[in-house]
Amino acid sequence: MKQSKVFIPTMKEVPAGAEALSHRLLLKAGLIKQSTSGIYSYLPLAARVLNNIEAIVREEMERIDAVEILMPALQQAELWEESGRWNAYGPELMRLKDRNGREFALGPTHEEVVTSIVRDELKSYKQLPMTLFQIQSKFRDEKRPRFGLLRGREFIMKDAYSFHADEASLDESYQDMYNAYGRIFKRVGINARPVVADSGAIGGSHTHEFMALSEIGEDTIVYSEQSDYAANIEKAEVVYQPNEKHSELQSLTKIETPNIHTAQELATFLEKPLDEITKSMVFKVDGEFIMVLVRGHHELNDIKLKAYFETDNIELATEDEVVNLLGAKPGSLGPVFDKDIKVYADNYIQDLNNIVVGANEDGYHLLNANIGRDFDVEAFGDFRFILEGEPLADGSGVARFAEGIEVGQVFKLGTKYSESMNATFLDNQGKAQPLLMGCYGIGVSRTLSAIVEQNNDENGIIWPKSVTPFDLHLITINPKKDDQRELADQLYAQLKESFDVLYDDRKERAGVKFNDADLIGLPIRVVVGKNASEGIVEVKRRDTGDSEDVHVDDLGNYVNELYTKL
Amino acid sequence: MKQSKVFIPTMKEVPAGAEALSHRLLLKAGLIKQSTSGIYSYLPLAARVLNNIEAIVREEMERIDAVEILMPALQQAELWEESGRWNAYGPELMRLKDRNGREFALGPTHEEVVTSIVRDELKSYKQLPMTLFQIQSKFRDEKRPRFGLLRGREFIMKDAYSFHADEASLDESYQDMYNAYGRIFKRVGINARPVVADSGAIGGSHTHEFMALSEIGEDTIVYSEQSDYAANIEKAEVVYQPNEKHSELQSLTKIETPNIHTAQELATFLEKPLDEITKSMVFKVDGEFIMVLVRGHHELNDIKLKAYFETDNIELATEDEVVNLLGAKPGSLGPVFDKDIKVYADNYIQDLNNIVVGANEDGYHLLNANIGRDFDVEAFGDFRFILEGEPLADGSGVARFAEGIEVGQVFKLGTKYSESMNATFLDNQGKAQPLLMGCYGIGVSRTLSAIVEQNNDENGIIWPKSVTPFDLHLITINPKKDDQRELADQLYAQLKESFDVLYDDRKERAGVKFNDADLIGLPIRVVVGKNASEGIVEVKRRDTGDSEDVHVDDLGNYVNELYTKL
Repeated sequence: MKQSKVFIPTMKEVPAGAEALSHRLLLKAGLIKQSTSGIYSYLPLAARVLNNIEAIVREEMERIDAVEILMPALQQAELWEESGRWNAYGPELMRLKDRNGREFALGPTHEEVVTSIVRDELKSYKQLPMTLFQIQSKFRDEKRPRFGLLRGREFIMKDAYSFHADEASLDESYQDMYNAYGRIFKRVGINARPVVADSGAIGGSHTHEFMALSEIGEDTIVYSEQSDYAANIEKAEVVYQPNEKHSELQSLTKIETPNIHTAQELATFLEKPLDEITKSMVFKVDGEFIMVLVRGHHELNDIKLKAYFETDNIELATEDEVVNLLGAKPGSLGPVFDKDIKVYADNYIQDLNNIVVGANEDGYHLLNANIGRDFDVEAFGDFRFILEGEPLADGSGVARFAEGIEVGQVFKLGTKYSESMNATFLDNQGKAQPLLMGCYGIGVSRTLSAIVEQNNDENGIIWPKSVTPFDLHLITINPKKDDQRELADQLYAQLKESFDVLYDDRKERAGVKFNDADLIGLPIRVVVGKNASEGIVEVKRRDTGDSEDVHVDDLGNYVNELYTKL
Repeated sequence: MKQSKVFIPTMKEVPAGAEALSHRLLLKAGLIKQSTSGIYSYLPLAARVLNNIEAIVREEMERIDAVEILMPALQQAELWEESGRWNAYGPELMRLKDRNGREFALGPTHEEVVTSIVRDELKSYKQLPMTLFQIQSKFRDEKRPRFGLLRGREFIMKDAYSFHADEASLDESYQDMYNAYGRIFKRVGINARPVVADSGAIGGSHTHEFMALSEIGEDTIVYSEQSDYAANIEKAEVVYQPNEKHSELQSLTKIETPNIHTAQELATFLEKPLDEITKSMVFKVDGEFIMVLVRGHHELNDIKLKAYFETDNIELATEDEVVNLLGAKPGSLGPVFDKDIKVYADNYIQDLNNIVVGANEDGYHLLNANIGRDFDVEAFGDFRFILEGEPLADGSGVARFAEGIEVGQVFKLGTKYSESMNATFLDNQGKAQPLLMGCYGIGVSRTLSAIVEQNNDENGIIWPKSVTPFDLHLITINPKKDDQRELADQLYAQLKESFDVLYDDRKERAGVKFNDADLIGLPIRVVVGKNASEGIVEVKRRDTGDSEDVHVDDLGNYVNELYTKL
């Protein structure tokens, strides 16, 4: 297309607050336009890339016999009440009422809808396994939308749902989808790593996330340099390797610790290392208060707590609740008390004796608290985040960290939705059984961002040819000169027979055009300039920057060969 | 694909209440599934047809240099307040609040969003003209969703918006789009007729609708058998051809008309023809009460009233308002009064004298009311719907009626949105001017329905090959027989190299498979049955029902030729 007809509002200066590289580049190259917080329009170049990504997704879905459908964004509350998520989902679920006062959600995901379709229309084990997918806009009212398309409130997803008669079949489709996702990310030009992840509120038992490594990530990935091990830090297991306790038991002593609120402040005040301090936190688990201890240099991981207690209903107790319960504010809490509150401790607490804990009295701590003597621990467990350098659960070496963008997830749901929504099939004995399900998602608009995040240089985007909005950028340096314009017009007519060509016919200065071309980042640039009258044009690769003068008679072959090599 | 993997829940009985033929066929052939009133999921066959329609739309848009974008469904109220439509739009606009209480609309159309994008990013006349389009789900909270996809609450639209420096350019893009729409409907297999239409609440001056003729339409089309004239009945002009008044003036007489409420009841009671009775209606126009008269056999057309008074703010007065104003209820109203209420009358009222009108007293009418003597008429005009058989405005003959489904509309908006939203460009003198705009829509999901409405027989759908979900239906009569299954597997592998093949590998009775195949309606069916061992299969056209036995060695060529001919 002629660039004068395409709407590509490139920018010199990116608005403040665009932190992520991809966000800055997408704005700067004129691909997206913010409508309001977390909501964007995709301008022509972005729409073309999205179409290319979606075509690749469709090919890979068809290859594993997944079948496309399209479900509605408007989802009646009744469906979400059946699954129990109408109340459980929280403020991220956007809700509205129709003209008759009936409640609806704007779909952030489609387990409920797809389960309701399948339970009505799928009867027999003969129809299984079956995998349905769709590509569609989703809605999630993020508390803090950020990073452009990476965490938006309206975004494009490919979501898929599989249905099975037995675990073996679910395992097979899960593996098919896992492999398809690997191929998709590779084809679109993303280096994405599957990592073990937490199953969270969606329920289910087994899940991997596909993480695209990036400068700014929303997630930290724990990985091994020696093996394929990779996990979301939320999920990465900490191996407990006991260390001997370091000293003789001493007697419990209360000391005044004025204005000390954090473990770090306490360590400084006592001139002890941070790892000899403990942190005591009170949680409400399904309505019951418990205390959890971790060492000063460790971070408690509430996702592991949820997994341990097998509930999503875990909250940190409020200050009021804590004061009411123990008589002191957070910062002065500890496990030495005469109350019916169970104490849980991270495994590494076992390495300590003569522990420093809060005295349950504001401004006071206890020295030399000891397990068994001064307080009891109900159970030890892995309740914290792993630290970089700690040993990995697969024994392959030590933990390395990287930042990543989650671009996809595969998930074994089991019977979570089929049981709550009564979706059954008749097995080969004619007996009704709950369907086993898997669900699978790719963030299509996130993938667009992740591609840009990983494919760029200081001058702009470098599109992988699989998804590039156009294949070639044909540029006239001075379209007012007849020889340049005529040659460029002729080359445009010729090249567009074999390629998607963006033809910069604008009456702008050459510098503006070249800057825009670098920013936009099409794989190959053909420049018609001062040698036009001799039939010579310049052909330049965006990735390496290599350029060569080529005679127009050879141009077709030259560009074909170069494009194939890319 | 193998039919056992595709989800096609065909039905024997269609649920009661599916009035439109396309609605029944889409349900019966397993293409759609209702989620709730006016909201549907598109199952695999429908998703494939939608993709095919969208591909044709994209080709024709690209051909006229329209450029694809994708705008959000979530639109902040502020934009709609700028255009004045936040208050004007009424309950069809679905509204919601985000977690911070900020108001949003779910886009039923995108004039506001696209105007806000362009006003920020388009600077100069050099960038004009420009046409942007998108394909996307739209939301409209219909009072009475019906006819399946034809009047739904969530539906798919291709909408386009063009921007211009002058009228000539707008005219040109309007004509390009008009022609593209004609090509699109022809290519997808719809007989659609462009008709002159009303511009309604969206504003603007000039518009055509593309109407697909159908059994059940939402609109009546007035057309000529002698010319290209076609108009939505809302808009079709009535030509006034005066008739002489038929009798001497007689004196005004009040008579009792007990329990008479309608013109028909009055005509029967008085033993007069219906066309000698008048109907008097009171409207509130921008807050002012007026009376409008039409003859008994004519229907008042409030769209023409709105055009006449150049306002959307016209409502029929309520019973309370009328009683308060004239002292009688609707049914006994008339223009003979001593009030400051202007009377407007349809042109054809001029043909009457000695008119029967309500007496403004419940249960009484006046005989022999005469214009000028007993009441004054502020103005005569064309305030009613045309009748079938009346002369057409273009002089080509008499009005014929047909039912139609509106599948597309092209629209000159002028500066309605650019002025209210302050979207300007700098002209070649460097002066800021409001952009001229056009807007253009195709109902993509409606088009799916309209295709089915026009392409079927008593056994099911007959897909045009341009949009068919699969090209060929390969069917084994008895897949348990090795020779049939093996031959069918081999043909499947062969045919899918050149065609999209749906391979019915299900272990169902032949009758079930043939019924499903007729319902689903793929253009060509290849049946592997009892002659499989001799290498003979049956090839059948869905449209004509013609079939022929073909040897497998000739099958490739035979099917290729047949498919080309379709």
